[in-house]
Amino acid sequence: MKVERYPEREQWSELTKRPIIKRERLTEIVAGIFDEVKNNGDQTLIDFAKKFDSAEINSIKVSEEEIEAAENLISEELETAIQEAKSNITRFHASQIPTVEKIETTKGVVCWRENRAIEKVGIYIPGGTAPLFSTVLMLAIPAQLAGCKEIILCTPPDKNGNVNPAILYTAKLCGVTQIFKTGGAQAIAAMTFGTESIPNVYKIFGPGNQYVVAAKEYAQNYNIAIDMPAGPSEVLVIADEKAVPEFCAADLLSQAEHGSDSQVIFLSTDEKILNETILETQKQLEALPRNEMAAESLKNSHFILLNSIDEALEFSNLYAPEHLILAVNDFENYIPKIQNAGSVFLGNYSCESAGDYASGTNHTLPTNGFAKNYSGVSLDSFVKKITFQNLSEQGLKNLGKTIEIMAEAEGLFAHKNAVSIRLKEQNERI
Amino acid sequence: MKVERYPEREQWSELTKRPIIKRERLTEIVAGIFDEVKNNGDQTLIDFAKKFDSAEINSIKVSEEEIEAAENLISEELETAIQEAKSNITRFHASQIPTVEKIETTKGVVCWRENRAIEKVGIYIPGGTAPLFSTVLMLAIPAQLAGCKEIILCTPPDKNGNVNPAILYTAKLCGVTQIFKTGGAQAIAAMTFGTESIPNVYKIFGPGNQYVVAAKEYAQNYNIAIDMPAGPSEVLVIADEKAVPEFCAADLLSQAEHGSDSQVIFLSTDEKILNETILETQKQLEALPRNEMAAESLKNSHFILLNSIDEALEFSNLYAPEHLILAVNDFENYIPKIQNAGSVFLGNYSCESAGDYASGTNHTLPTNGFAKNYSGVSLDSFVKKITFQNLSEQGLKNLGKTIEIMAEAEGLFAHKNAVSIRLKEQNERI
Repeated sequence: MKVERYPEREQWSELTKRPIIKRERLTEIVAGIFDEVKNNGDQTLIDFAKKFDSAEINSIKVSEEEIEAAENLISEELETAIQEAKSNITRFHASQIPTVEKIETTKGVVCWRENRAIEKVGIYIPGGTAPLFSTVLMLAIPAQLAGCKEIILCTPPDKNGNVNPAILYTAKLCGVTQIFKTGGAQAIAAMTFGTESIPNVYKIFGPGNQYVVAAKEYAQNYNIAIDMPAGPSEVLVIADEKAVPEFCAADLLSQAEHGSDSQVIFLSTDEKILNETILETQKQLEALPRNEMAAESLKNSHFILLNSIDEALEFSNLYAPEHLILAVNDFENYIPKIQNAGSVFLGNYSCESAGDYASGTNHTLPTNGFAKNYSGVSLDSFVKKITFQNLSEQGLKNLGKTIEIMAEAEGLFAHKNAVSIRLKEQNERI
Repeated sequence: MKVERYPEREQWSELTKRPIIKRERLTEIVAGIFDEVKNNGDQTLIDFAKKFDSAEINSIKVSEEEIEAAENLISEELETAIQEAKSNITRFHASQIPTVEKIETTKGVVCWRENRAIEKVGIYIPGGTAPLFSTVLMLAIPAQLAGCKEIILCTPPDKNGNVNPAILYTAKLCGVTQIFKTGGAQAIAAMTFGTESIPNVYKIFGPGNQYVVAAKEYAQNYNIAIDMPAGPSEVLVIADEKAVPEFCAADLLSQAEHGSDSQVIFLSTDEKILNETILETQKQLEALPRNEMAAESLKNSHFILLNSIDEALEFSNLYAPEHLILAVNDFENYIPKIQNAGSVFLGNYSCESAGDYASGTNHTLPTNGFAKNYSGVSLDSFVKKITFQNLSEQGLKNLGKTIEIMAEAEGLFAHKNAVSIRLKEQNERI
C-alpha cells in the first residue's frame, strides 16, 4: 500500500498510471492456433482439451442430458439467487430497448433508427477455480433480449471433461443456444471460423487470460467484432468523513481478490477515515481465504488524502476507473462531475458486489483507462442501429437543391444527378 | 457488369463476396511514422507536408484569420445549403439524446445510465480533389451535440499550404475547436500522441486512404478508440416492377463514382426493369465527368434477377450492404425483414445522395460486410454510457442474501464480505 497526503498536481499523472503489465507478444502463438483450428476443426479442439485441460472428451458439444443434469447438481438456494439476479438484470437491460421515433427533418423527409440483433454471438467463459456463471448472466441476458438468433458459449472442461453445473444451469436459463467444451485461444478461433460442431459468430464477448485476450484481438483481422479491449480490473473509492472504513476496506478487498494485477485506489478528504480504512484493510485481508492474491494486488494500491471531493473527482476522471464508489454523504451533488468511469456506486450501501452480481447493471466494463472512450456492455452491444429514411416526392423537392449544390461542390456529379434526374421527372409529369 | 438470372442458392455465397482488395502490409511503414511523430512532433508534420503534400507551411494550426476568410471564399448558395444540411443532421442526431430513466430493479435498488461525452475527439478529413465538407458535418455535429470539449480536425493542406474553404467554413459552423494542416498516417499519429500544436485525443473518426486506415488501426495499440473498421463503399438496390430504371441507374452510379473499389449490386424481380437499368447505367455513365472510376467500379458490379422481394432481402442480408435502397412499391412490408444493412433508403424518391448530404442521417456507415456486427456513426459514437446505482439500506437488505450466495458459489469471499459486513452493521444498529 502506498500512502500519499495531499500530493501535488504534478504527481497526479504518475499516481493515475496503471501498473505495467508484462504482456508477452502472443500474436505468433495465437496465429498458429488459429491456423490449426481453421484446418483441422474439432480434432484440434479435442487434442487441445487433452493437452491444456487434461480432459478426454469425445464430443465438443455439451449434450442435452448434461444440461438437464446440471439443475440437480446445484443447490436450490443458488438457483433462486441466480433467478433473482436474472430478473433484475433483465429489467435493467430491457429498459435499454429504445422506442422507434420517426423524425421529420424537412417536410416530407422522415428519418429513424431501428435496432436489429447481431444474428450470431459467442460468449467465452474462462475455466479455473471460480465458475463465472455471473458473466453468463451479464452476456446471455442482453443477447437474448436483443433477439440474437444464435448465442453460443465456449468454456474449457474440467479434468473429467465436465463443465461446471452453475454455468450450464445459467446458460440454459438465459437462452444460450449451444454450449461447447473448449477454452483458450482455440475457442476464440473456433468461433471465428466455425468448425464441424461450432458455428462461426459475428461478435465475441467475455473475459479470459492473456491468450484469450490476444486471440480476441487477432479475431478482428477476420472481421469479427469484440466486446471491448481488455485489461486488469480496478476500483476507485472516494470517501468523505461520513464513510464507513469497514465498508470501504471490504470494497477495496473485493476488487483486490480478483487477481494480483487488480488495482485499488482510495481517496479521502478525511485523514481519520483514511487511516482507519488502511487498518481495516489489513485486518480484513488476513481473514480472507484467497489473501495472497489480494495482498499482491494491494502492493499496487494507492491511499491518498485530498482536499475536497471535487479534487477527488478530478483525480478520478483522470484515472477513469472501471468501478467508482462514491462513499460520500451528498453524492447526488457530485454525479454531474463524473466524467470518466465504467460504473458508479453511490452511497454507503452500494457495494461493488451488488453490481457484480445482482442489482441489474452489467459487470462487463471498460478497464485500464478505457472508461475515457468506451462504454460497458449493454443491450446496445448486441444490436446494430440501422438508419432508415423515406423522402416523399415533396420531400425530395424540398431538399433536392441543397443536395445538388453540396454534391457539385464536392465534385461528385453522379451524386448530384441522382437528385436532378428525379426532379426532372417530377417537373415533366406536372 | 455481371448479369445473373435466377442464380442457384449455392452461388449466393460467391456473389456476395467483396472484390479482393490488395492491401499492402503497411504496419511497418505506419509504425515508423508513429515513432517519428512521437519523437519530433510538429517538425515531422511540417517536413511531411513538404514531402507528401508539396506544401511549405510554417504553422500546423489553421489561424483564426484563415477561418474567417473562408466564409468569403465560398458561394452564398453553398453556405445556405450547408446550413440547411446542418439543421437536418442536428435534428436527427439530437433525437438520439436519451432521457435518463431510473429503474428500481428491486425495492430500494435503483439503476440508471447517463451519457458522458468523450472529452477529446479527432476528425480526419482526406485531401484530394473532392473537399469532403459533408463528412465534417457528419462527424462534428454529433460531437458537438454530445458535448465533446475538444473537437479537433486534421486535413492535408493543398500545394499552397491552404485548406479548402468549404471545410474551414463547415468546421467553424459545427464547433470544431482547432483545425490542423496535416494528413496521412502522420495526422493520426499526431492525434494519438499529441505534438506541440496538436492535442492528443481519445477517439479518432473519419475516412482516408490505406495509410490512414492502417494508422487508425495502429493507434488502437495506444488505447485510442476508432469509429469503425474501414472498407470500400457499396450500395445494393432492390427494385420491383414499379421501380424507375433511370433512378436506379443514377443511384448505382453515384456509388460507383466514389472509387474503382466501390461495389454496386442491383437485384430485381422484373426482367424488364433489370434490362432497362443496365442500359440506363451505361447511358448515364458516358455523361459523367469522372466516368473512368465509375466504369472501373462497375466491372465488379452484379445485376441479378431474382424470384421475389423476399428472396432479394435474403440475398441482401447475406451481403450486408452499407447502403440499401428499396425501390419497391410496398416497402413498409419489408422493413421488418431487413437484418443487416448500414442505412436504408425507402421508395423511389429516397436516393442515397439525400443521406450522403442532407436528410439528417449519418453517412459514416459500416462497409465490407461490417453491417452484420457494427452500426454507423451516431451520437452514441461520441459518448460513454455510464451506469449508476444506489442501494438504500433496505435495498441491500432485500438483495444482500442473493449476492452473498452467488459470490460464495464463485469462490469470491471478499465480494461476499462486502455485503455481509454491511448487513451485520445494520443488524447491530437495530
